[in-house]
Amino acid sequence: MASPSPSTLLAAAREGDRAALARVLSLVERGGDAARQVGTQLTSADGGPPGGRAYTVGITGAPGAGKSTLTNALVREVRDAGHRIAVLAVDPSSPFTGGALLGDRVRMGDHALDEGVFIRSMATRGHLGGLAVATPEAVRVLSAAGFDWVLVETVGVGQVEVEVAGQTDTTIVTVNPGWGDAVQAAKAGLMEIADVFVVNKADRPGASEARRDLERLLDMSGSGADTDVTWRPPVLTAVATTGEGVAEVWDAVARHRAHLEATGELTERRRRRAAEEITRLVAVRLMERARATSGGDQAAALANEVADGALDPWSAAERLLEAPSA
Amino acid sequence: MASPSPSTLLAAAREGDRAALARVLSLVERGGDAARQVGTQLTSADGGPPGGRAYTVGITGAPGAGKSTLTNALVREVRDAGHRIAVLAVDPSSPFTGGALLGDRVRMGDHALDEGVFIRSMATRGHLGGLAVATPEAVRVLSAAGFDWVLVETVGVGQVEVEVAGQTDTTIVTVNPGWGDAVQAAKAGLMEIADVFVVNKADRPGASEARRDLERLLDMSGSGADTDVTWRPPVLTAVATTGEGVAEVWDAVARHRAHLEATGELTERRRRRAAEEITRLVAVRLMERARATSGGDQAAALANEVADGALDPWSAAERLLEAPSA
Repeated sequence: MASPSPSTLLAAAREGDRAALARVLSLVERGGDAARQVGTQLTSADGGPPGGRAYTVGITGAPGAGKSTLTNALVREVRDAGHRIAVLAVDPSSPFTGGALLGDRVRMGDHALDEGVFIRSMATRGHLGGLAVATPEAVRVLSAAGFDWVLVETVGVGQVEVEVAGQTDTTIVTVNPGWGDAVQAAKAGLMEIADVFVVNKADRPGASEARRDLERLLDMSGSGADTDVTWRPPVLTAVATTGEGVAEVWDAVARHRAHLEATGELTERRRRRAAEEITRLVAVRLMERARATSGGDQAAALANEVADGALDPWSAAERLLEAPSA
Repeated sequence: MASPSPSTLLAAAREGDRAALARVLSLVERGGDAARQVGTQLTSADGGPPGGRAYTVGITGAPGAGKSTLTNALVREVRDAGHRIAVLAVDPSSPFTGGALLGDRVRMGDHALDEGVFIRSMATRGHLGGLAVATPEAVRVLSAAGFDWVLVETVGVGQVEVEVAGQTDTTIVTVNPGWGDAVQAAKAGLMEIADVFVVNKADRPGASEARRDLERLLDMSGSGADTDVTWRPPVLTAVATTGEGVAEVWDAVARHRAHLEATGELTERRRRRAAEEITRLVAVRLMERARATSGGDQAAALANEVADGALDPWSAAERLLEAPSA
């Protein structure tokens, strides 16, 4: 029996078939032709592209900041409000295996029987464009499958994770008590993507200091002063493990959403994201040509020359691009 | 007065002019034509490409693991052995400003007067290819300037940082005492790039547990079993702030280097890296075309269509690529 086509799977996912939804997301994660087939079938009819129906919330912060627990607690808030919600847990990948070591994580067991919740880990499988391309695509798939909210949670705060978390409508940055974390957040470029700050594990010493430090960093970065956005990210405290402060976090997300909608900034943000995404996809298509160009015997010979120091890699790249097959 | 050309600056850097060296590295960091001009002038004569003279050591681990302090302590070891050493501290960048928030860090003041040490922060300035392209190029520049060792230290453990740290001859992964850190390291894909593990801050509780956990993870990942490499990463403990255990870390790096040289694996690694780098540079050249393609009025109109949900981004990318100017 032939395996179902991407469009058959997508149609089933739209009808609420969770196994089909999982398979479509695997196609998106894997990239290539099947991902593109999925992508071209998602338009406004089901709340597709960045201007689509699902509202997206990014959750980022250093490893160990309690992002998974906070996500879990926020899911409960959203469910209590009667919305359907999906979670994408974005994992960085190894450069050698092209896959997340632990694979899909078994977690958030208390939502396991709830049809209004869908949880999924995403890793790059070494395909071109990686998570920066796959994540917005996966968001559109989840939107098409009828989820009103999509939480995008990242494992770390590397370049790609910051990029992915910044591509959402509202971005929550999570830090832990103590001065160090706020500075690390600033170093990682998180001040500039944060719409809401959460000092999690606030029952530990140093929570008020962390809060004060973040406020100072916000003062220094001149938030709200030289941009057309008049939103200053609130700095909240929470203890996600007990649920303390989580309702306030969700309330801040709702206020930020209302702000974006009232000012027209939501449309602007989504347009900017659309432009960035198109550029990225153009690059992917061109990189596919690059890979094809770099695969042959000539490429292997050039790599040896470069490794031996007889040729520089830029010139090697030029030679491949000038080759008749390029 | 016209500013000096990239080749003039590079020639001065080769002669030991540190200001010129800093300027060449800025060109590399910024990317584009000047970076390419620098890159094409680095070949075997001065120990250029991955097969070049400088031996590279990556240092990675979660923010707060004490990487900078360990780097500082390792620099002292290398200096005591009479080698010249350069440090590249690789910072992730913000997706919005395209620059590291804190910029070049003033640090490691105790090496400030030592001509045999050169320290430099690197951030992506939003150029194509980013740190994955700029870092090996910067290593070649430092090699040309006569440094025997280059330490590449990353701020976090995101996708790009792991990739960059994995592109070195020997990769040190730093964790802190306690079970959580070892698991986070595994999640971030660090087990697969580690050649040496260091449990830093080993004077804190949980150091032996962290060590045991890493050994178990190594057992589980079958290191040394199903690959042609018979090196099992040693798991060491250190207190970088006091220097305790640092000599042993450096000794492990030396042993790993000897292992790579004896088995021929060093040549193999550098060939693989050269092939990857060429592919990346081919992609950069093609992406430059993508950017040019995505800059015009047609691109802006398509972005609006995508944001409004009237068109999917893949189809928008195809239209741009099919446009006469592409």
